[in-house]
Order: sequence, then structure tokens, then C-alpha cells
Amino acid sequence: MELYNREQISAVVRLDQDALAAVEAGFRALGEGSVVQPPILSMPIEESNGEVDVKTAHIRGNDSFAIKVSPGFFDNPKLGLPSLNGLMIVFSAKTGLVEAVLFDEGYLTDVRTALAGAIAAKHLARPDSRRVTVLGAGVQAELQVAALQLVRDIDTLDVWARDRDRAQGYAERMRRDYGLNVNVHDDIAAACRDADIIVTTTPAKQPILDGAHLPNGVHVTAMGSDSPDKRELDSSVMERADAFVADTRAQSEHNGELKAYAGHAPPFEIFELGRVIASDQGPRTSPDQITVCDLTGTGVQDTAIAGLALSRLKG
Amino acid sequence: MELYNREQISAVVRLDQDALAAVEAGFRALGEGSVVQPPILSMPIEESNGEVDVKTAHIRGNDSFAIKVSPGFFDNPKLGLPSLNGLMIVFSAKTGLVEAVLFDEGYLTDVRTALAGAIAAKHLARPDSRRVTVLGAGVQAELQVAALQLVRDIDTLDVWARDRDRAQGYAERMRRDYGLNVNVHDDIAAACRDADIIVTTTPAKQPILDGAHLPNGVHVTAMGSDSPDKRELDSSVMERADAFVADTRAQSEHNGELKAYAGHAPPFEIFELGRVIASDQGPRTSPDQITVCDLTGTGVQDTAIAGLALSRLKG
Repeated sequence: MELYNREQISAVVRLDQDALAAVEAGFRALGEGSVVQPPILSMPIEESNGEVDVKTAHIRGNDSFAIKVSPGFFDNPKLGLPSLNGLMIVFSAKTGLVEAVLFDEGYLTDVRTALAGAIAAKHLARPDSRRVTVLGAGVQAELQVAALQLVRDIDTLDVWARDRDRAQGYAERMRRDYGLNVNVHDDIAAACRDADIIVTTTPAKQPILDGAHLPNGVHVTAMGSDSPDKRELDSSVMERADAFVADTRAQSEHNGELKAYAGHAPPFEIFELGRVIASDQGPRTSPDQITVCDLTGTGVQDTAIAGLALSRLKG
Repeated sequence: MELYNREQISAVVRLDQDALAAVEAGFRALGEGSVVQPPILSMPIEESNGEVDVKTAHIRGNDSFAIKVSPGFFDNPKLGLPSLNGLMIVFSAKTGLVEAVLFDEGYLTDVRTALAGAIAAKHLARPDSRRVTVLGAGVQAELQVAALQLVRDIDTLDVWARDRDRAQGYAERMRRDYGLNVNVHDDIAAACRDADIIVTTTPAKQPILDGAHLPNGVHVTAMGSDSPDKRELDSSVMERADAFVADTRAQSEHNGELKAYAGHAPPFEIFELGRVIASDQGPRTSPDQITVCDLTGTGVQDTAIAGLALSRLKG
């Protein structure tokens, strides 16, 4: 059994085409019905404003699977600690023995989450997409754009964040590190006006994006909502879209944007990302159409990225 | 963050009164409503005849909690490997940071499972119980009896197992290591005839114990059924009992003996072990009554025993 730390893991796993292919293969297997993926285990630790989630999945036929434990303790920044943490344990799928513990402190989650956004855009966004709007200015605001560059020729970035200073700092980093044209906006409508792709990366508890904000032909990836108390999309976003895709329908209903329709059926068809990939034919059939993808984070992404990490760490 | 192996852990955690008190306190907290205990995460790995379970619980106010990952791969013995494995991760309940990983390979599960049997007997069995019947001859057949000695003056053991040779080997060990009078039986009815306490420790998929097997005044602990495909008790056992106690009702319905009543209400009251402990008054009100306790294994036991282990390991 091997133990690896964040430094070792981040030295070998990055946002690149191999990592994208690994996570995409996981989604494809999910769409093909060859993945066992149980519901997320989630436990609140209310007195510390914390929670812990456990995700896992097994891709049938794979030699190993991962179990990821993700604590989120949202008062940690007051203590000088990061809110998100965690580790992945890789088990042999033949014997159940522990092969490795990846003490990645959430690094692999950041990577596989960003890659899911790129995979969604690869299959849903217009091929000529160049201009991205990001709502939010945190870790994923950067990584989602970095990952999108693997699948589209991004040159212009529009950003809005609740905290204008953070948006400015983010804009400076994205100009410096990625050579992008970046515009900071004071309101969401203006930020979205010319977008080819919109990515929502906030911890919002009330919808921030409205159907009226969407230009024709845009693709929206909503990746902020990952728990029952969060939402980023007004139902008008989903109802204006020509196709709504969830990473998994059940998780979107419980943790994601389909919570908007609790107790009644949404007035649109629900696609799942894995099935879109497995069908090799995205639901977009014209450049004017609007697509929306809701990402809540799936165990198969964790198993896929942990498998890649371990194979690189071992040799 | 500290890492500990099975040898280190088994050197400091044993079946003793401190460990019993720790697990009993966990059940008491559960009964008092001061525990967050999410449903078990369970994933089958069918092609390897395996499964992996994740259990956790947080006792409000505690400084730490544990998450346990238990793989069970039932073809492992053919490879010379144990079927059961696993580890516990101890997290700070203040920050979510990993405090320790206990690579106990299932040792702490064995201990806390045996202690739950003792705790059930402490609160349910007649105080003068001396004679124990064990069905099965595996690890828990021994540990359940060892743990019962913490709460009752056990002097005589009756054993039945499907494999007579294993029953004989078990009997010899229990005579030698525990100084008990041990009788090996060919049928369950004879094994149970004079029991004060019956413990079922088998992986049976069909009921093996019948209500007609029960002598007046007996206490039954059924600890073998811990998954949807297992059952040890015929419904006549529960229906003959004066009190039926589950470690948790929801788990007993899903994994334990209450599966016998899927889809309809059982014709008896269901107690929960934590509430029995917290009430400081067991449901037994006379020596002739029959009590039954169904143990499926709870996350609060894991958090309790991991906390004890870590405090001892740290000094």
C-alpha cells in the first residue's frame, strides 16, 4: 500500500488531454450503464458549519476503484485553513485491499470538476465558442477556464463576482497567466450579453442567472450547486434552453438545479452527460440553440481521476 | 496526521470495560438524539463477489468523528486473503482535517461488533445468565462470548455450526482459552434448549432460528444479518419475543431481521438499543420474558471505538 501527498499528486496530474480523456471515459461508461455508482453519503457537522461527503463508483471491469471523502468546513478560513479538504482511497476491485491513499487535500476534486466542465462544453457548446463568461471568482473560476482551453479556442473572458475586488484580482491573474482579454462587470446581464459559454461557479443559495440573461447559441455550465441548500439557475434558464443535461439526474434533483422542480416534473426533457457522450451525438442541432449542463460532481469522476493519478504515481 | 497499523491498534484496544463503556456511550448518545448518523453507503462489486460499505456518525460535541470503509470480498479466502478488510479515518469535527488513519484491517469492527452484543445482553438478558448458545463458529462466535464475559458470569457454552468440524475446533479453543464448559450440537433445537443467551453469528440467507427453539427467559442477539440478502431469525422468533430491539430500526429494516416484514408493519413494538440504554430501564420486566436484539452495525459504534483507539494510540 502506498501513500501520496498533494505535492506528489499535483506534480503528475494536471489539466491536460489525458486527464480529460480519463474523466470523459468515466462519464461514457456511466452512460453505457457499466458503472455502479451509489448515492452520495453526506453528513452535516452543524456546530462547526461543516459537512462531509463520501462519493464512490466502480467502472465494471476496472482493476481498482476509489472512495473519496470530502470534508467542507466553511469557517476554516477564519482559522487560516482551507474550507475544502479530503482524500481518496484506491482499492483493488479484485480483493478490496487498499492499494493507495491519495492525501490530495481536494486537489483531484478541483481537477476532475474543472474537467467535467470542459467535457460538457466539448459535447454541448458551439465548436466556434471563444468568449466565456464566468460568474464567481474562486478556484473553479480559474480552473474551469483553464480546462475549457483544452476543448475550445478561448480568447475573451467576462467576469462577474459578488465581491468586485476579488473579480478584479481574478481578472488580473487570468490576463497574466492565460493571456486572455478579460472584462470585469458590475452586473450579470452585461457580463453574459456576448457569451458563447457561461460558467456559474458560485456558492449561491438563490438563483443568480436568469433566462433573460442568455444570448442565443450560448452553452451554460452550472457547477456551483452541489448540496440541497444551493442553487444558481432560475428555472427560466432551464426552460429557455433547447437541451438540459445533468451529470446525473438523481444528483441534480437532490443537490443540483433540478431542485427547482421538487415534487413535479420539469417541463423539458432531461439528458444525462454520460449518455450524451456515449451516444456520440450531442443534443445541439443548430448554432442558435441554448444548452445547459448541471454538474453536481459524481463518484465516477473520482474513480477515473484517482486511477489516472495512481497509474502515473506508480510509474 | 498519524497513521497506525493493525498491530499498533490491537495492542491498545481490547475487549475490556473501557471499550464497552465507549461503545455504550455512543449508543446512549444515539438514543438521546445527539448523534448524526447518515444511511450506510454500500456498493457491490459483483464480478469479484465483493462489496464495500462506508459507515459514519458524529456525536454532537465530540472533537472528532470517524468514517469507516469496509470492503468484503468473499472469494478472497481462495487467494489466501481474508474476506474482510478496511480502515477508519478520524477527522477533526472542528476543521474536517484528517487526524489519523487507522489501518486496522477490520480489527476495530470485530471489537465494536462484539461489544454491541455485550451491551445488548447487559440491558436485555437476565442478570443471572450463565449459559450461552452460539450458532456459527467464525470470528464473532468467539468474540461475542469473550465480550459477554464483561457483563455476565458465563460458564457454559453450547455451539452449533453448519460445519461440524469447525464447531469442534471452536469448542476446543473456547475450552482452552476461556475455561468454559462447551457442548457441540448437531441440531439447533438441542443447542438452544437450555440457553440463557443465544447469539446467532452466521452469514445465513434463510432463517435458521425458529420461535419454537426459544426457552422461556432467553435473550437472543442476532448479529449475522448485515445486508439485504441475509437473515437468521424466522419471524416466529420476533413474534414470540416480549421485546424486540434493533440497533437502529432503519438499518434492521434494510439489512437486518425486520426485512421479514417488508411492506407491512410488524405485529410488535420496535425498540432501539440506544433508547433502551438512554432510558436506563430495559424492556425486560420479568425473568420469564424473551428478548431479541438485532444488530446490523452502526456508524456510531465506529466513531466511538475509533475515538478510543486514537486517544490510546496518542498516549
